[in-house]
Amino acid sequence: MSSTGPGDRSYGGGDRGDRGGRGGDRPARAPLAPPRLPKGALRMVALGGIGEIGRNMTVYEYDGRLLIVDCGVLFPEDAQPGVDLILPDLRLVENRVDDIDAVVITHGHEDHIGALPWLLRLRKDLPVIGARFSLALIAAKCREHHITPKLEVVKEGERRSVGAWDLEFFAVNHSIPDALAVAIRTPAGTVLHTGDIKLDQLPLDGRLTDLGGFARLGEEGVDLFCVDSTNAEVPGFVAPERDIGPVLDSFIAKARQRVIVASFASHVHRVQQMLDAAEAHHRKVAFVGRSMVRNMQIAQELGLLTVPDGLVRSLDKVLELPPEQVLLISTGSQGEPLSALSRMSRGEHRQVNLIQGDTVILASSMIPGNETSVFTVINELARVGVTVVHQGVAKVHVSGHASAGELLFMYNAVKPKNVIPVHGEWRHLRAQAKLAVLTGVPSDRVILAPDGTVVDLIDGRARISGHIPVGMVYVDGNAVGDVGETTLSDRLVLGEGGFISITVAIDSHTGRAVGAPTIAGRGFSDDPNALDAVVPIVEAELARSEADGITDPHRIAQSVRRVVGRWVGDVYRRRPMIVPTVLAV
Amino acid sequence: MSSTGPGDRSYGGGDRGDRGGRGGDRPARAPLAPPRLPKGALRMVALGGIGEIGRNMTVYEYDGRLLIVDCGVLFPEDAQPGVDLILPDLRLVENRVDDIDAVVITHGHEDHIGALPWLLRLRKDLPVIGARFSLALIAAKCREHHITPKLEVVKEGERRSVGAWDLEFFAVNHSIPDALAVAIRTPAGTVLHTGDIKLDQLPLDGRLTDLGGFARLGEEGVDLFCVDSTNAEVPGFVAPERDIGPVLDSFIAKARQRVIVASFASHVHRVQQMLDAAEAHHRKVAFVGRSMVRNMQIAQELGLLTVPDGLVRSLDKVLELPPEQVLLISTGSQGEPLSALSRMSRGEHRQVNLIQGDTVILASSMIPGNETSVFTVINELARVGVTVVHQGVAKVHVSGHASAGELLFMYNAVKPKNVIPVHGEWRHLRAQAKLAVLTGVPSDRVILAPDGTVVDLIDGRARISGHIPVGMVYVDGNAVGDVGETTLSDRLVLGEGGFISITVAIDSHTGRAVGAPTIAGRGFSDDPNALDAVVPIVEAELARSEADGITDPHRIAQSVRRVVGRWVGDVYRRRPMIVPTVLAV
Repeated sequence: MSSTGPGDRSYGGGDRGDRGGRGGDRPARAPLAPPRLPKGALRMVALGGIGEIGRNMTVYEYDGRLLIVDCGVLFPEDAQPGVDLILPDLRLVENRVDDIDAVVITHGHEDHIGALPWLLRLRKDLPVIGARFSLALIAAKCREHHITPKLEVVKEGERRSVGAWDLEFFAVNHSIPDALAVAIRTPAGTVLHTGDIKLDQLPLDGRLTDLGGFARLGEEGVDLFCVDSTNAEVPGFVAPERDIGPVLDSFIAKARQRVIVASFASHVHRVQQMLDAAEAHHRKVAFVGRSMVRNMQIAQELGLLTVPDGLVRSLDKVLELPPEQVLLISTGSQGEPLSALSRMSRGEHRQVNLIQGDTVILASSMIPGNETSVFTVINELARVGVTVVHQGVAKVHVSGHASAGELLFMYNAVKPKNVIPVHGEWRHLRAQAKLAVLTGVPSDRVILAPDGTVVDLIDGRARISGHIPVGMVYVDGNAVGDVGETTLSDRLVLGEGGFISITVAIDSHTGRAVGAPTIAGRGFSDDPNALDAVVPIVEAELARSEADGITDPHRIAQSVRRVVGRWVGDVYRRRPMIVPTVLAV
Repeated sequence: MSSTGPGDRSYGGGDRGDRGGRGGDRPARAPLAPPRLPKGALRMVALGGIGEIGRNMTVYEYDGRLLIVDCGVLFPEDAQPGVDLILPDLRLVENRVDDIDAVVITHGHEDHIGALPWLLRLRKDLPVIGARFSLALIAAKCREHHITPKLEVVKEGERRSVGAWDLEFFAVNHSIPDALAVAIRTPAGTVLHTGDIKLDQLPLDGRLTDLGGFARLGEEGVDLFCVDSTNAEVPGFVAPERDIGPVLDSFIAKARQRVIVASFASHVHRVQQMLDAAEAHHRKVAFVGRSMVRNMQIAQELGLLTVPDGLVRSLDKVLELPPEQVLLISTGSQGEPLSALSRMSRGEHRQVNLIQGDTVILASSMIPGNETSVFTVINELARVGVTVVHQGVAKVHVSGHASAGELLFMYNAVKPKNVIPVHGEWRHLRAQAKLAVLTGVPSDRVILAPDGTVVDLIDGRARISGHIPVGMVYVDGNAVGDVGETTLSDRLVLGEGGFISITVAIDSHTGRAVGAPTIAGRGFSDDPNALDAVVPIVEAELARSEADGITDPHRIAQSVRRVVGRWVGDVYRRRPMIVPTVLAV
């Protein structure tokens, strides 16, 4: 089994076409040939996160040494059916793992930490540097992968040298506690890498984004500014997180039965506001969903979540209380079909049966692509008579990413000499670039550098010096990298039209058919007689082949595919996959 | 071929589960047994459009006669892969076509007219009643289906008897010209059926929704109010359509190169504003996309679109002009992969090559489920450097459906005795019901009646009297109804994991394998060796069967499926479809 098990699957994936889109090109293991890095220059290459939202991973190089910032996963889209996760393409670093001085983690979201286990498998003792909460989430994740990472806690305001890298960490606020920006000082210049960031001026934990620190760094000189572009298209400012509290409170105050609030499992401040509202309205709380239970346990241990004595109980215990004393805080805000909330909406949850008059609040955004799933959950709940509150009808969510107005504040504080918009699709990168230019950055100093673009900072000026191939590395089940564009395009064809299989046995000497062809369709039609007409068509084609003296099973299979494909196109105007098998017996 | 061609495919589809969700239940042709309609009672049954947005079709019955309002299609979701269209389940009327007095069409959108050709195939001379623009679109559609419909034009303000039905038509505004509401007076009571509606108080064509007429009818007494629920969740009022004009104008004024504006092909008033802006800024216009060209031709002929002489030209001619004199008005606003705009975004359009500095405006909504496609187009354009304006960043779209504030105006004018929320998913129906109750309709007079619910109006009171089975009727290629839930669930499995086929020949007498098994996978792995280990596993299983004296190909196939399924689950943690074929030779 050794040659077929996924354990020895080599790492790598399809190259991206040079239009930078997802997939489309044939998988290849093109040699990595980044241009030579001149002495004294600083290099930046994103392996993920630029041109897409997800799998953020940036590699910096100076004097032969590497520093990695973040190592996340990307979640697949419709065009990548059956894929569980998408990893950054690690080929640039896989043969240079001993050159890596450290991995700096800006915060604990999956799109920044999710691929770490695969990186750590390449070198177990790679130092991972980050804030307490981020590292606690990484530790929990690595436990599931049976990896014990080497973690080094840092705090905002701290400055430390790691190899040749002089790192300084700044507090930033986002939709998870303990997020950090990192300044990277090198002899070639200073980088400010924001990670995910916003400028909430009334953060619940009082931990402001350190705009003053950015300004100080700006005075000193920021040569390269890598800045979160997610909301660069959106004018104005993100409302403070604390605005959500009173809205949650008002819905919970009105509710006469059970209340379920769903949110992201790492959004500690949002959960804190749910706990506060629960306490104010004399409800007890249970956390529902594995990641919610785990993360809130960690947050409480680290003092990031304040839980009054006796407020949070087990789900069993809370469900014993009268409905008007119950508040459940749950995962499933994206409509994930297997989540607790989704199962509740379908009446399939083992413990929680929602009824008319219950309230469900989705205190979350809808991540693009998830709308249909989320609305399916909402409609199922509405059907039963559950009152559903979501961001389309009430202010129960604010974004974790700076809008254009906030980004302008940052540019004016940092006064960067060169800018690379990160964390965004093309529309976000373009919007970010526009903001940079508006604040006075020369347009030729704003570098749009999608994944795989090699940017070198030389004499204070950033320029694209080349490109390396970066593929979509798909995780499907427990194998990595064996699902590529061919497999995905077959899945898309099969998913649209199913297949028709034609199995025939031929006499290997004469080419004469042995017995009747076996025709089967799956995903083609519910009509059991739909393919009856195929048998005589195939038989006629086999007779023709035999008459022509053809005995090559491959040629026979091709001609069978052709006639059946033509038949189905003419009669049904459909394009199922045609799968002929010719056995020479 | 007669037994396999789609031509004789019978009409019908899978029944919906009684949770009212989409699909899931096995297809069946359950007998239709609606409860007996008492003498003097009026019946209303929606065959589509309640509990879903799309395929609107309502059947009214009085004294053995039927009146149909609208006959639209529903567009498929991810859970219905490969399906082109979904039709209403016509079984209720297919054996009663001679009882139908007429089909009233409220307006010309696909979700209100798209299924007419299939209804008209059941009875060619069915009178179709509607306003001029609606009927012109129907005529064009029917031409494509080689049907000549019997069309009867009506106008707002008109009252006419059709059989036992006393119909009165009211002007309403929506996102297409010439929309009508219809009042249906019967001895059992009066229905007001709004169709799609909003209360734009400054409509571009001056054609206000006839709220005064509604009030007059309300004074007379409206026993049943069937009202558009699409935006019932949304607080407040829809901004006037005319607010879009200045926004379009400002972007067109700024543009220095080509401008492409995409919108729905029937949104005549939006297109009028594009034409006005084009003229103001000395640009010539070409329509792009078959439906846009066709519909604007019709609108111009009917005097609904004012086109200054020489403004609109063929695409070829317009493309000869300097870029700053070009404005293209195109379809493709939903990111449809084959649309002109989508092809332009990928650089694959035969005539239009967009470059950095061009402007694309998506003057349209994003229909839920289309977000990923739309953002793909936007990102491809942004990548090239095209400036893209969409509703997320500028006020380039307003909805065609009344928000909650407008709906309250309607309730207060109509003062309905009974209400059936229509045109909505469950979340919309619930929100609509809440508004009805707020304005004083007793809650037991607000009937939530998803597709197939039989509602009878007796002595002025509407009540649910039963349910009829209504299925999802899928059109795939040129066949109707043969794709059902089994086919769709196979497609979903194939689309997620592909399949592994195992073909073996056995000696029909001994059960002994003849030759080696043929193993093939599609949509499973790009690794050519991924399935090498399957051969010995299958051979071992065949040897076991032979030793047990098993010669039944079906039993052998089952055991092969089992061992291969177990292997792939253990080794890969995936669930491809396993397709064994055992030939007895």
